[in-house]
Amino acid sequence: MRVTPTSSLNAGCPVMVERYEFKGRALTEKFQLELRPPGSGDNIADTDRLRQALERRSSCPVGIPLDLLKEIPTRLRQQEWKVTVTVGYYWPPGWGLKGLTARLVEVEPGFDYSGPFGVAVDLGSTTVAGYLWDLGVGRLVAAYSTFNAQVKVGEDILTRIHHAATSQGLRELQEDAVASINRVIALLARRANIRPHAITAGVISGNTTMVHLLLGLPPTNICRSPYVPVVNAPGFIPAEQIGLYIHPQALVYFLPGVGSYVGGDILAGILASGMHRQEDIGLLADIGTNGEMVLGNREWLVAAAGAAGPALEGGVISCGMRAEPGAVYKVYIDSQTGKITYQTIENEPARGICGSGVVDAIAQGLLAGIITQRGELRAPLASLVVVPAEESATGKPIELTTTDIQRFLRTKAAANAIMFTLLESVGCTLKDVKYFYAAGAFGEHLDVESAVVVGLYPDLPRENIISLGNSSLMGASLILTDLRKGQEVEEIARRVTYVEMNNSPRFMSHFTAGLFFPHTDLHLFPSVQDRLKSHT
Amino acid sequence: MRVTPTSSLNAGCPVMVERYEFKGRALTEKFQLELRPPGSGDNIADTDRLRQALERRSSCPVGIPLDLLKEIPTRLRQQEWKVTVTVGYYWPPGWGLKGLTARLVEVEPGFDYSGPFGVAVDLGSTTVAGYLWDLGVGRLVAAYSTFNAQVKVGEDILTRIHHAATSQGLRELQEDAVASINRVIALLARRANIRPHAITAGVISGNTTMVHLLLGLPPTNICRSPYVPVVNAPGFIPAEQIGLYIHPQALVYFLPGVGSYVGGDILAGILASGMHRQEDIGLLADIGTNGEMVLGNREWLVAAAGAAGPALEGGVISCGMRAEPGAVYKVYIDSQTGKITYQTIENEPARGICGSGVVDAIAQGLLAGIITQRGELRAPLASLVVVPAEESATGKPIELTTTDIQRFLRTKAAANAIMFTLLESVGCTLKDVKYFYAAGAFGEHLDVESAVVVGLYPDLPRENIISLGNSSLMGASLILTDLRKGQEVEEIARRVTYVEMNNSPRFMSHFTAGLFFPHTDLHLFPSVQDRLKSHT
Repeated sequence: MRVTPTSSLNAGCPVMVERYEFKGRALTEKFQLELRPPGSGDNIADTDRLRQALERRSSCPVGIPLDLLKEIPTRLRQQEWKVTVTVGYYWPPGWGLKGLTARLVEVEPGFDYSGPFGVAVDLGSTTVAGYLWDLGVGRLVAAYSTFNAQVKVGEDILTRIHHAATSQGLRELQEDAVASINRVIALLARRANIRPHAITAGVISGNTTMVHLLLGLPPTNICRSPYVPVVNAPGFIPAEQIGLYIHPQALVYFLPGVGSYVGGDILAGILASGMHRQEDIGLLADIGTNGEMVLGNREWLVAAAGAAGPALEGGVISCGMRAEPGAVYKVYIDSQTGKITYQTIENEPARGICGSGVVDAIAQGLLAGIITQRGELRAPLASLVVVPAEESATGKPIELTTTDIQRFLRTKAAANAIMFTLLESVGCTLKDVKYFYAAGAFGEHLDVESAVVVGLYPDLPRENIISLGNSSLMGASLILTDLRKGQEVEEIARRVTYVEMNNSPRFMSHFTAGLFFPHTDLHLFPSVQDRLKSHT
Repeated sequence: MRVTPTSSLNAGCPVMVERYEFKGRALTEKFQLELRPPGSGDNIADTDRLRQALERRSSCPVGIPLDLLKEIPTRLRQQEWKVTVTVGYYWPPGWGLKGLTARLVEVEPGFDYSGPFGVAVDLGSTTVAGYLWDLGVGRLVAAYSTFNAQVKVGEDILTRIHHAATSQGLRELQEDAVASINRVIALLARRANIRPHAITAGVISGNTTMVHLLLGLPPTNICRSPYVPVVNAPGFIPAEQIGLYIHPQALVYFLPGVGSYVGGDILAGILASGMHRQEDIGLLADIGTNGEMVLGNREWLVAAAGAAGPALEGGVISCGMRAEPGAVYKVYIDSQTGKITYQTIENEPARGICGSGVVDAIAQGLLAGIITQRGELRAPLASLVVVPAEESATGKPIELTTTDIQRFLRTKAAANAIMFTLLESVGCTLKDVKYFYAAGAFGEHLDVESAVVVGLYPDLPRENIISLGNSSLMGASLILTDLRKGQEVEEIARRVTYVEMNNSPRFMSHFTAGLFFPHTDLHLFPSVQDRLKSHT
């Protein structure tokens, strides 16, 4: 099996999209209009003639930018008053459908039935992923992802926030973000065989810091108390103002966030999960660079975030690496023989181990009795060698040391602490949670069974643990294809209550209780308890 | 008495403005806000915090341009969360109050109670006039007018439309218009001792061609059948896109027009007159470069336009000139002695005669029996010498020849023809008309009694003939100071029915009937008939 971040992104989400019916109005729409030519007794202005015809179709006001005003007389007459008109819809953030307005994006002579096209972008701190949609028929026509060029400044978000405070740093990071998105757009357009100019709407989902950097907004206050971003709800911004190489008049929508640590990417996840519409309580977790969790149902939603995740992203583990070709991402240990089997991305010789490989290896080590529930290697092992030196590309073994496992255990414990503190904040326990949604790119690659064994995911019936894949890209796509989803996500943003972890005296005790695989309270993980019994 | 175009503009309109109560919301507003500083448990983003506080005051959505987003965090903290925020209001053309939206224009640290300031501009083909308003207190703080720099291309509108079709012609005329308005703005700001940047809203009133040239829109189709402009209702356009030197984010509103020949300047006149709200029928006439008339009341409005007016603008009459220093603008003839007295603008030696001088001279000539009702000079006079050669600045007499008088008579007859054709189109006669409104700059200077004597104005009770002064500037000011007036003018634009003069078979017979002072049907001018009796 060949697995690359790109192809897995491509493969994962369309399946999810098919779960939603394609209905409602997309963020950009194309109308073929045949206007009555002016004549004696009917000599209203070209633009007003066009606007009136258009408003009968759009049922909302249509604004026309000055640059287009100049072109309209010629375009209308080129094909005898037959034109194809593209509009983009927008609304003032938080004002919903009653504020719905259209903006003229393009007027072409004659009838054209292609598109319109829109792009959904997940602006991750590591990866920038995009979907190109043909919004005329509601079809995903291309997918592509690439690394965020900002990575050269540093892997983690704090490094970038600090870099943004240096002279030219913010500009540099902004240019990197814009360039990365433009690279995705250029490739999407090439794959679909359209001009980037034909893309007349965009939706961008990203965490709060990423959105700030893309827009050139100083992110300084995001990481210092009281953690206040410049903006939570940027709303719609014309592409040309951001520097995106789609139609310059295209409007780009930014998903709103809730505070500094629950960004648009998480809101996209809620939207994609549908948890905000269900009677049953759901728990959504995005454990990537940071750990973010949302708990709730159609009546209430609470969210929290914390520093849980770094050990899953590579760099913290001694042999850790990103999910690139050559990374061990799947591990199996035969409990009888102790034989270790592994798979690498693109089947390349192993160069390191990525997050999902670490979780797999530890879970398998626990089940095989090689790793204790305290996260220690059973004597006489000094390390868990996943790939022997002679098989690896580096000439060194790919292994997990006790230090590595302890680091992972603390990450896991932090995730547990967020989860249990969040549950307690609303007087719930895990028993009240019906569904668990794994959001974000990491959740897409992770083996669910292993994640439960190590205690990272709750021990729910497996059919109730749902991997959303790249739910950030997913949520952005939903809005692109149905503007009511955009208004829904703003409604979600208003409903979410942010729970501050730093203020909770219970956080530390939950953290301590989590420093055990799967958890000190084994009753919380009955299925794992059964499987581990042999070793206790 | 020293009379200049500038001072008369200044003097004329504030009086009119005082007839209206200053109430309602101006197009730009300033709010002094003291925000609650963010803290633990209240860490919404700076911009959203500001927007929420603002929306409580504006009661409508507030959009924030990207450029301002970047500045907001610093500005909020500079004076401990005390800021003065300036917004501009706008709405999609034709959508009224339900589409009302605000746009953040400026955020200043601390409390500032000056202004906000707005500028109203009448963009005439000859003169560009502006009023600077302090919209905080609703006070006119400065007035200024200057010639439209486009005049160098040609006095009349057709010449400019043709020039716009040449290479670079449109750009040149656009730059001239922008430069002329900017000159007015610069002087207004200097007089009021404010920075032009402090002006955060604008309203521009002009005829359809002038608005097209200012916006760089091709005016070609305005003057060829079926006379279709590019746009009738440009709505709001940011100042920076037009090139106006006020606050770059300020929104500039353009009064809507009705077709090619009834522009925003006429709509401003209707608005200023209030005829659209009255039960009694009113007739509004703007006889300047062209002749435009509107008839109606609160239930219906019809409008027409035609080539009536050139003989009033100077250039067509042999000694004609614009209303500049040295122009004869007032003439009195003693019927007993035949002695002629005159006044020139700024009391400078006479260089020519302007429109109001021509009307005065002919009326006085008629009353003194020097001019016949057919528009001929009584023998043995070869000309009506208003200023003898020895008194004039040119060394030649300032006089009206029979040819001049005949030219004026045809202009007058054309105005009559528009008026009577318009009245007939709705089955009315002059008897049904209660009020006559003289709109436009020309109406401001004209002596009402003389205008009735020559038959240019209808013979109504004099108190029902109302000189609106520069009603274009007046209407623009009303909208600037009360945005509901802007929505009212759009309602008026929808209500006005344009009556095509070219299509009316009766137009020519009305024209012929008008080739007599005051009119062949003397019953229409009973008061004039009495005064002229002695000579018939």
